[in-house]
Amino acid sequence: MVTRRILVFCLVCLLGWAWVTVAPAADDPLPSWNDGATKQSIIDFVTRVTKEGGPDYVAPPERVATIDNDGTLWVEQPMYTQSVFAIDEVKAQSNQHPEWNDQEPFKSVLAGDMKAVAAMGEKGMVEIVAATHSGMTTVAFNQTVSDWLATAKHPRFKVLYTDLVYQPMLELLAYLRANGFKTFIVSGGGVEFMRAFADKTYGVPPEQVIGSSGVTKYQMWDASPVLVKEPKVLFVDDGPGKPEGINHFIGRQPIFAFGNSDGDKEMLEWTAFCRRLCFMGLVHHTDAVREYAYDRDSSVGKLDKALDEALAKGWTVVDMKNDWKVIFPPAK
Amino acid sequence: MVTRRILVFCLVCLLGWAWVTVAPAADDPLPSWNDGATKQSIIDFVTRVTKEGGPDYVAPPERVATIDNDGTLWVEQPMYTQSVFAIDEVKAQSNQHPEWNDQEPFKSVLAGDMKAVAAMGEKGMVEIVAATHSGMTTVAFNQTVSDWLATAKHPRFKVLYTDLVYQPMLELLAYLRANGFKTFIVSGGGVEFMRAFADKTYGVPPEQVIGSSGVTKYQMWDASPVLVKEPKVLFVDDGPGKPEGINHFIGRQPIFAFGNSDGDKEMLEWTAFCRRLCFMGLVHHTDAVREYAYDRDSSVGKLDKALDEALAKGWTVVDMKNDWKVIFPPAK
Repeated sequence: MVTRRILVFCLVCLLGWAWVTVAPAADDPLPSWNDGATKQSIIDFVTRVTKEGGPDYVAPPERVATIDNDGTLWVEQPMYTQSVFAIDEVKAQSNQHPEWNDQEPFKSVLAGDMKAVAAMGEKGMVEIVAATHSGMTTVAFNQTVSDWLATAKHPRFKVLYTDLVYQPMLELLAYLRANGFKTFIVSGGGVEFMRAFADKTYGVPPEQVIGSSGVTKYQMWDASPVLVKEPKVLFVDDGPGKPEGINHFIGRQPIFAFGNSDGDKEMLEWTAFCRRLCFMGLVHHTDAVREYAYDRDSSVGKLDKALDEALAKGWTVVDMKNDWKVIFPPAK
Repeated sequence: MVTRRILVFCLVCLLGWAWVTVAPAADDPLPSWNDGATKQSIIDFVTRVTKEGGPDYVAPPERVATIDNDGTLWVEQPMYTQSVFAIDEVKAQSNQHPEWNDQEPFKSVLAGDMKAVAAMGEKGMVEIVAATHSGMTTVAFNQTVSDWLATAKHPRFKVLYTDLVYQPMLELLAYLRANGFKTFIVSGGGVEFMRAFADKTYGVPPEQVIGSSGVTKYQMWDASPVLVKEPKVLFVDDGPGKPEGINHFIGRQPIFAFGNSDGDKEMLEWTAFCRRLCFMGLVHHTDAVREYAYDRDSSVGKLDKALDEALAKGWTVVDMKNDWKVIFPPAK
């Protein structure tokens, strides 16, 4: 009888312990983040800058958060999603460009020789993007991207690319907005490519998406005004281009910035000089099972110098494998 | 006695009539606008696009209003305010530039020969702006503009330039925002010049100010990251540059646009093709007594082709003299 009572008691204890450690607190704003220093650093920062009358209080209009896209909000391996789109567009547009059959890098794309395309490096991809992202109106381009995103699937996960966003980062975006932050995407990706899905996928409206951009020209087509995309770069929003782009578009210095690669280094360095409490974060891809593991030697999303700087300066580094309970949102 | 009664009766009638015709309705959102077709066109538009379930309803995120600055929100005569600032800066910076004493257009500015400066036209002014708006950090430039605006006075009105904003347009901005519109400034003026006062003066935050811009470069100065202004044009936000700039910064087509010169023509034309109910407005400067009267022959804020188009297409044209009860806010 005593033994039975002890057993029941222990079972109750065990259930209680399990409930305490596994079930998220009802008011946990970041339920997909494991408890620990990483999650706590985010919550501490948001709590301090929103505490009215506190020494670190920041007024809502100045709560500017700038967050990278590729590798920070969604999967960027084995190739940037926009590069996959551009390659698919070479095939889709090839009927209108017979000259591409004899002209690199298009010839290799059409022959399916992706090793040759990769060997051409960034220069080849820039040519592919310039050719496939120009000659149409901004409205037509937006439609093409939307149509592609509605059907194209990731080679490993076999789901839509917009299903490969990080659930913990969606929670972070919502948590920031619930605390009066304006959330901006600041990415090396094309601004018009991202605007085609950022509002629906991340809740970030077009006017809060900052990215690389080409020149557009205002023209009259059939007596209607249109904006036509030209194959000419206006602005590259990567590396030092990130603080330059933030200044150009927002005109304020962020107090919160998140990235995942060396292309985010200058954005984080600039944010660190915000002259009040600032938050600098990096997603470190450490989970080859659930997503990918890569950093210093990766050709996509290389994280080397920014990781050294983050470790040296005590910036928050997300260990994806250990800090995130889940990677992707539940299947729809 | 009867005469006295009639007199009292008439006096009561007169007071009643005066109250009805002069006193603004308590809920009048545009009290500085005279009643009439111009004011009514604004109120009708806002009422229709905000009526839930109505045929012209527009959801709040798409209520984008783009409004010019010089001549639309504040005085632009006899010279754009930013040009006056640039000329003052030539004098302020001349100690550091002894070469300017022998070099046009600086030589004429320093000699006070404004006729010679004017004769050099836009090219001369671009050189003056480029030279005086570069070589410093964005933070230092913002401070210089703020300091100048706190002291420089308009040659005719003898008040600060920020006191020469149009009271009816301040009411319009507030009315739009109260009805869920996001108000953007879209001006040929320099974006960083305008950001120094737009929030305080118009309630338009930095991230909603679109203007012409120079290249900025991210650099380390004394181990601190800064953005340095270079004497190189990145983007000219005027004429066709306005729809291009709106697409670049906002990524949405406005449903409401207001300007005052031919530099706003393309912005208004593009807005007119918003494929739902849209509002296009022009301020016509017709009041030489209270402000200025100018249009087709003016070298500053020329309004010629856009006026023809507005009249032909039935866009709203503000007749400043007759539509506005007051021009400027009450003196502080």
